[in-house]
Parts: sequence; structure tokens; C-alpha cells
Amino acid sequence: MTTQLIILNGGSSSGKSGIIRCLQAVLPDPWLAFGCDSFVEALPAKMRESDAGIAVAEDGGVSVGADFLALEAAWIDGVVATARAGARIIIDEVFLGGAAGQQRWQKALDGLDVLWVGVRCDGAVAAGREIARGDRVQGMAASQAAVVHQGVFYDVQVDTTHTEALACARAIAAHVS
Amino acid sequence: MTTQLIILNGGSSSGKSGIIRCLQAVLPDPWLAFGCDSFVEALPAKMRESDAGIAVAEDGGVSVGADFLALEAAWIDGVVATARAGARIIIDEVFLGGAAGQQRWQKALDGLDVLWVGVRCDGAVAAGREIARGDRVQGMAASQAAVVHQGVFYDVQVDTTHTEALACARAIAAHVS
Amino acid sequence: MTTQLIILNGGSSSGKSGIIRCLQAVLPDPWLAFGCDSFVEALPAKMRESDAGIAVAEDGGVSVGADFLALEAAWIDGVVATARAGARIIIDEVFLGGAAGQQRWQKALDGLDVLWVGVRCDGAVAAGREIARGDRVQGMAASQAAVVHQGVFYDVQVDTTHTEALACARAIAAHVS
Amino acid sequence: MTTQLIILNGGSSSGKSGIIRCLQAVLPDPWLAFGCDSFVEALPAKMRESDAGIAVAEDGGVSVGADFLALEAAWIDGVVATARAGARIIIDEVFLGGAAGQQRWQKALDGLDVLWVGVRCDGAVAAGREIARGDRVQGMAASQAAVVHQGVFYDVQVDTTHTEALACARAIAAHVS
Repeated sequence: MTTQLIILNGGSSSGKSGIIRCLQAVLPDPWLAFGCDSFVEALPAKMRESDAGIAVAEDGGVSVGADFLALEAAWIDGVVATARAGARIIIDEVFLGGAAGQQRWQKALDGLDVLWVGVRCDGAVAAGREIARGDRVQGMAASQAAVVHQGVFYDVQVDTTHTEALACARAIAAHVS
Repeated sequence: MTTQLIILNGGSSSGKSGIIRCLQAVLPDPWLAFGCDSFVEALPAKMRESDAGIAVAEDGGVSVGADFLALEAAWIDGVVATARAGARIIIDEVFLGGAAGQQRWQKALDGLDVLWVGVRCDGAVAAGREIARGDRVQGMAASQAAVVHQGVFYDVQVDTTHTEALACARAIAAHVS
Repeated sequence: MTTQLIILNGGSSSGKSGIIRCLQAVLPDPWLAFGCDSFVEALPAKMRESDAGIAVAEDGGVSVGADFLALEAAWIDGVVATARAGARIIIDEVFLGGAAGQQRWQKALDGLDVLWVGVRCDGAVAAGREIARGDRVQGMAASQAAVVHQGVFYDVQVDTTHTEALACARAIAAHVS
Repeated sequence: MTTQLIILNGGSSSGKSGIIRCLQAVLPDPWLAFGCDSFVEALPAKMRESDAGIAVAEDGGVSVGADFLALEAAWIDGVVATARAGARIIIDEVFLGGAAGQQRWQKALDGLDVLWVGVRCDGAVAAGREIARGDRVQGMAASQAAVVHQGVFYDVQVDTTHTEALACARAIAAHVS
């Protein structure tokens, strides 16, 4: 089988974006990169910070509403269709609800060959990197570090606490067929 | 019929992005916004500025290669699938090849209800706005102003030369069913 | 005399940034561009959204505290020193307190040759452009459109309501000696 | 004495920006952060990529011209004046010419209390982080890693190869008086 989709799941500031850019550099084929951040950018401004959309509390807690989930489900169908049409795709995900997030993808995948990747990072280290980034609400990194992995299964896991993004990308690339 | 997709076509610095943010604000339903810029951001860095990918010459001329066109076709299939799954979508496009660009979409649309929108802007005015933006290669606005519309048909056209983005958005919104 | 400093004052979304990039393009000498936005970016993240720093309310109202004003005064001294050392500088300002904002600069200028520029824009048009930009708190444009000009004197004024940024820049450049 | 200026010098992708945001977070006073990147952003677009300004070659080599150096000298005078007026400042620098870069600052400092900080990173690790950032010309990190430190003296040095930005910031903060 040929890997059609790589889905990375990890908390905020765990280092997924850097790994994905390295994956795009080291994998010989051109892979498209999408993710929850590019999906949120596609939303109307009025849905960011609304009950029906997505809101980030002062403590970094993230909540999403019914409109968000409906649009996200349609977007996932679109990603799957893009992969089925022949584009290889890397997805940057944060399963705020753990296993439930993975199940939303599984319902849509329908036989697609997916590589599931867990991106771990020690919560305190991720919180420090959140300060170093300077553009994130403080608290997201610590609160998401563990819960996003609850009940989620992976084909491969990497840990950015002591490993560089490029080395993580090479470890993941070794599992791409 | 209910409009499922709004596709705006216009040259660089013609004001499409501003109109789209206004459309997302004035339309009562939540509409997702994607476009050629978000597609290019999804590409590997190595495909920007390569023969197989997309390159911008010093005079602002844009050329795309075989890999780009193959991935773009798959991405268009994905947008159509997202719309078919129930999300309403606005697309920001630049048909560098005029009618040929529109045909690439039409082949994929397969019965979807689309509103085709032409966004015009006087070439000299667009070139001035390109200077004011400061982050674009000089020359794209002037060279694209006319050619992107050659042979393309529209349901509605707006002209940003003397009309604000919000007024253009309201004119377009009046055609959304 | 040779103009050493151009200070543009106008409300949010009145179009100052675009005019400044055009000024940098049309003026033959290289001019540096600084402003309240680049100053705010230099602040610690913890001072944005704090009582001692700068906060933006939900209605777009902006308030600044004692630490902000002390650092801003030192920054103004630095801009004046840069100009005195021979660099020509354009400043992007929003005099939230009208004449009081201009006086903070005048106290520091000490004989420097300054061109004072008022950038006007109809409040409703600026509010529409705020929606089109999509990254500003709604309400800033309308609330600032008039008050920032109260009691402020100018050498030249431009109005972006019906005039492009490049044309405004040329009108201002004609007053630079 | 009270530290008035912290000047960090290190190659591209060595991690200076992250350390500076952490310093702003851990230091009790509000410190302003400026640097060569904010200076380059203040330049006219036409000076980026010109012989008189600053140009980045395809291999990541950076060259600066006469206009750049003249404006930079005036900007340094302004930073010193801002510090002398009472604002505490952190500077993000890349001494492309090693000791010569430090001397350009020393000529202007005139008795100011400065903490000189070297930010080291293994060249291969920095090159990997450059890939992970995705927005830098490949080759800058490797070519600058060693040369920017040649002949430069420091009060404190940190190495981001195996140490997080926050820990580096705390080590530097311990030297601030």
C-alpha cells in the first residue's frame, strides 16, 4: 500500500508545524500540508470567538460549537477527496477530545491508507516554548499536552522534548510507504 | 437552488481578499474561504520557486509546472467534495490562463450550484495598490489585470477601481440564493 | 531647510500604512518607517492587554497606562536622535488624545524640521475597510476617525475616502523639501 | 550599575527571538525589544534586494551596502538615546562581520551599561531548525553559525543546541543588574 495521508496529533506548542515542514523537505514526493489552523483561518472572522464557532478562554481552554463541527466534518470529507484524487497530504491536528477526534477522521477515511503519528512533548517544556513563541494564549500548551492523546492509537510516535524536528521527521518518514 | 460555491476571479491586487472577508461578514450563514494563496501555502517550500511547482519572475510573471497542476486538480476535487458535504465555500482565484482556468473548475463541479464573480480593477490603480501593499513583486497587478478575464463568463461582475470592498460584497451577496 | 521627519496622524484603517509604503517608493532618498504599531510590537507580550500597558476593549476602544507612556516617551527621544544622526524618518501615528499626542512629539523635537500630515477618511468608509482587513477589532475605525484630529495642526492633509494611497503619497511628497 | 541594554548576537536560526520573548516574560521590568529584523522592516522595500541596501543570495549569503550602513548607524544612535532616556532595551543582532559589528555598537554606547550575550547553536542543528521554520533562505544558519562570533567578547554565553529558550533566558537574566 502507498501512504495517502499522514495525520499528526499533538498539543499546542508540541512542535507539529516544524516537523511537517521538515517532512515536506525530506519526503521525495510533494506532499500538501493542511490542518486545524488552516481550517480556522478559512472561517469567517465572526465565528472565531463565538459560541457557535471557536473560542479561546483566558486560561487557554479551547471550545468549539455546532457550526464549527458541521463545517469541520465537511472539510474532512474534502481532505479525504483530495487524497483519493491523488494528492498526498499531511494533516496537523489537535484532538482536543482525544479519541473522539480520531473517530471523526476514521468515519470519513473509508479505506484510505493513513499513517497515524503522535507528537508528544513534556508539558513544562511545551509551556516554555509557548512563552518563546509569544503569539499564543498562555496555558494552551500545558492543558493540551496529555489530554489530546487520551485513547488515541498511533502507528508511530515522536517526542520533541529532546529530539529536533528534523530528526522526528526522518523517524516518521521511515514509516511512509 | 441554493448557492454552494462562490468563485471570484481577478488579478493580483484587484481586491478579492477584502471582498471575501466582507462577504463572510455580510452573508448570514458561515462560509469557508479558500483560494490559490491558501493552496500555495500548503505546498512544500521546495515547490515554490521550482520548475515543477510555481515560480514568480522578476517582472511579476507567474509560471506553474506539472506537479502544481496535478496537485491543484486534486485540491479542486476536495473543495467540491467539501461543498457537496454541506459547507458553503468562497474561492479566491486568479485564472492566469483565462478561460482555461475556469474550465479546470467546471470539469470538477458536476452539478454544483456556483456563482461566478469577476473582480475587475483598472490596471494602473491595481499597480498603485501593489506598491501600497509592499509585499508583492511589482508588475503582477498590471500584467494580470486584463488577461485573467479573457474568455471567462460571469454571473456578476464588480469593479474595485471606484467601489469599496464592502459595497462590492453587498452587490455579490444580492446574487446568492 | 531639509525635511527630517514626516509624521502622519490618522485613525485606524484610514490608510496610513499604504501611504507610507508609497512614500518610501516615490521619495528618491531612503526613508525609514516607524510607528505606533512597531513600538507596540517591541513591548513585552505581558504589557499588551494590561492596565499599565495597552489594552483594546471589545468595542475597539484603546487605553494606555503609565508604563506605556514612559516607554513611548523614551522611544520618541530615540526616533528624534535617529533623525538628528542623519536618517530621514516617516512616523505612523494615531493621536488617541488629539492635540495631546502631538504635544508629546513637539516637546522632543527641539528644532527638527517636521512635516505634519493629517490622514483623513470618512468614518463609515474606514469602518468598511476594517471589515475588509479582517484582523482588527471592529469599532476602532469609526471611534477614532474624528477624535484623533481634534486640535491637531497639519502642514498638509490628505483624504483617502476617494483618493488612492499612491496619489496621497505624491501629494505629500510635493511638500517634502 | 543598572543594565540598560542587553545585546544578543548569534547566527540565523540560533534561537535569539525565542530567548528575547522569554527574557521579556521573566524580567520584572518592561524591556523593549528591537533588532536587525525590525530595522530591515523599516527600510523601503526597494532597499531590500539592492546593492546599496541589503541582499540575500541564493546560498543564504547576506550583503549590505553603503546606504544600509549609514541608516543603521543612525538607528543605533537612536537605540542608545532611547536607553539613555530611561527605557530598558534588548537588541537582537547578527554580527555578519564578527568583531566589526560589535565595534559599530561600541562607538555609539558612550558609557551605557551593556550586557553582551553570545547565542551559540551547533551549525547542523541550526540548519535543521531553518528547515523547520520554512521561511528562511536555506544556508544562512550554517554559514553564520561560527563567523558571527569571531573576535566578539561576551559577558555571558548560552547554547541553544541542547538548552530550551526559557532556560537560556533565565541564565541571562541572572546577569542583569
